[in-house]
Amino acid sequence: MKLAKQFFLVALCIASLSLPAFAAADPLPSWNDTAPKKAIVTFVERVTKSGSPEFVPPAERIATFDQDGCLWAEQPMYAQLAFALDRVKALAPQHPEWKEKQPFKAALEGDVKTVFAGGEHALLELVMATHAGNTTEEFGQTVKEWIATARHPKTGRLYTEMVYQPMLELLAYLRANGFKTFIVSGGGIEFMRPWTEKVYGIPPEQVIGSSIRTKFEVRDGKPVLVRLPEINFIDDKAGKPVGIQQHIGRRPIAAFGNSDGDFEMLEWTTAGPGPRLGVYVHHDDAGREWAYDRKSPIGRLDRGLDEAAKRGWVVISMKSDWKVIFPFGKR
Amino acid sequence: MKLAKQFFLVALCIASLSLPAFAAADPLPSWNDTAPKKAIVTFVERVTKSGSPEFVPPAERIATFDQDGCLWAEQPMYAQLAFALDRVKALAPQHPEWKEKQPFKAALEGDVKTVFAGGEHALLELVMATHAGNTTEEFGQTVKEWIATARHPKTGRLYTEMVYQPMLELLAYLRANGFKTFIVSGGGIEFMRPWTEKVYGIPPEQVIGSSIRTKFEVRDGKPVLVRLPEINFIDDKAGKPVGIQQHIGRRPIAAFGNSDGDFEMLEWTTAGPGPRLGVYVHHDDAGREWAYDRKSPIGRLDRGLDEAAKRGWVVISMKSDWKVIFPFGKR
Repeated sequence: MKLAKQFFLVALCIASLSLPAFAAADPLPSWNDTAPKKAIVTFVERVTKSGSPEFVPPAERIATFDQDGCLWAEQPMYAQLAFALDRVKALAPQHPEWKEKQPFKAALEGDVKTVFAGGEHALLELVMATHAGNTTEEFGQTVKEWIATARHPKTGRLYTEMVYQPMLELLAYLRANGFKTFIVSGGGIEFMRPWTEKVYGIPPEQVIGSSIRTKFEVRDGKPVLVRLPEINFIDDKAGKPVGIQQHIGRRPIAAFGNSDGDFEMLEWTTAGPGPRLGVYVHHDDAGREWAYDRKSPIGRLDRGLDEAAKRGWVVISMKSDWKVIFPFGKR
Repeated sequence: MKLAKQFFLVALCIASLSLPAFAAADPLPSWNDTAPKKAIVTFVERVTKSGSPEFVPPAERIATFDQDGCLWAEQPMYAQLAFALDRVKALAPQHPEWKEKQPFKAALEGDVKTVFAGGEHALLELVMATHAGNTTEEFGQTVKEWIATARHPKTGRLYTEMVYQPMLELLAYLRANGFKTFIVSGGGIEFMRPWTEKVYGIPPEQVIGSSIRTKFEVRDGKPVLVRLPEINFIDDKAGKPVGIQQHIGRRPIAAFGNSDGDFEMLEWTTAGPGPRLGVYVHHDDAGREWAYDRKSPIGRLDRGLDEAAKRGWVVISMKSDWKVIFPFGKR
């Protein structure tokens, strides 16, 4: 065993010694050499240069990422809403009353427009009916099965393929430079955790999101956490800095978002001392993805577009700054 | 630069190659070779042996630790209560009414007995008056200043010296074996975070505790998180598994506590599949520390003592299993 360990270490060392050669390769190959890429690389070089007054110790290199519209596509509707609608269909046999009751009737008929017309209240009812009442383990299993098979309505791809290739490279680049990467999403925390490690390299403990309450119970001698139909926390807008403090306990030095729901996260992040990076992904590529901003009900970016320049935040044009959008579109 | 990097890597390799030699040294030198140490080492060997059916991937090697009475002393009163009493004194000039108002009057007079006589309500009032109303950054700074100077009433040592040397070794041993170590305490999350990294090697994002609500605000153009006088979460008893799921999102494989407040955490942890480790620190050393269990108002251990054996949990006798208690008592 010890000999094997030594061989392994020697192999590791050989690999390490050849790192400087590899380091010359572009870590962000899907990014055009435009201003956003330069701003990101310059920022990373500033905070990682040891001896520099701007050096940030690895423990403090916290980077937070919104998910919907920042790491993966959010059009034509949030993946989690598609999940909720599919769950309504799966659970319908146990709820014959849903056939005549809104918003379930509309959900069963695939009439998303009517579901939306019910406003926040209708969506909350859908979420509670489909996300609560089970245990954390049961819910995690349901999400795992859904995400492994559900297909995006427009592309027919798995949702986990609808991720942005340039952002995958960015996550890896930051981690290679000692950053700890977190998701800070308005989406459900337990809807993301079952698959973020595999898809983004982000483990469950680095996922922050909205949540419902849970309750510890012992059922037939077996402890379980039961998911209750009550909101615990909404991780959106002014809730994002609150969620960040609750989970991480320190202010990020870099934050990435794509909508006004991320404004306060970028504001909180970039108000700290020393070098800071605030970045918006702007959806302006109707050909390869979608084009939407100020008027979109999903992922509205209005105030953010107005204030980004004066606040020194970087705005990524998906159309001009990214060579490819999705991994399946890699050249 | 590149040359320097290569030299560094060579040095690193030499260090790595000599690791097997060091590995022979006992990683738990302050532990007697009694059953608890053997149980811990056996568990770690089982879950880290690659190829074994009991192997646990590093990402799933989550170990959770209670703080008060498990990592540091909690007698004659919780350090956080001492902090609250000191804060009452510091804030008294701004609150002349406290001179005549309980529980503040008793706190100002150092009459802890009367404070306690007021029950949970009195303690909650003290906590809210001393922990809320400021920003997260102001509160963190206050804690930092207090913890750097406040002395334990019995030993005159800094509170951060009142930590258990065997547990410091255990934390380091687990991390050296790929574990991620978390604190899961009934104490205030923001009371611990400013110093746990330095004292235990546990960064703020791996600290879970009780909390009050916070609110994001922009004051004179500067974003702040204001601490509100409202309970957000109580991380004790059945709250511990809830807090663990909320923050970590997966079940630990090892959990360490010392009171009935940790029972549900050990129960939740050890109910999972595969090898599991549940450990109680039993305070039975009146000479070197304190002896208390079933009848103690602080750190009561009653049900846990009754059920540990039948649940396969390890009980550490501080008297018999630890060679030293505190770092300053190291031989």
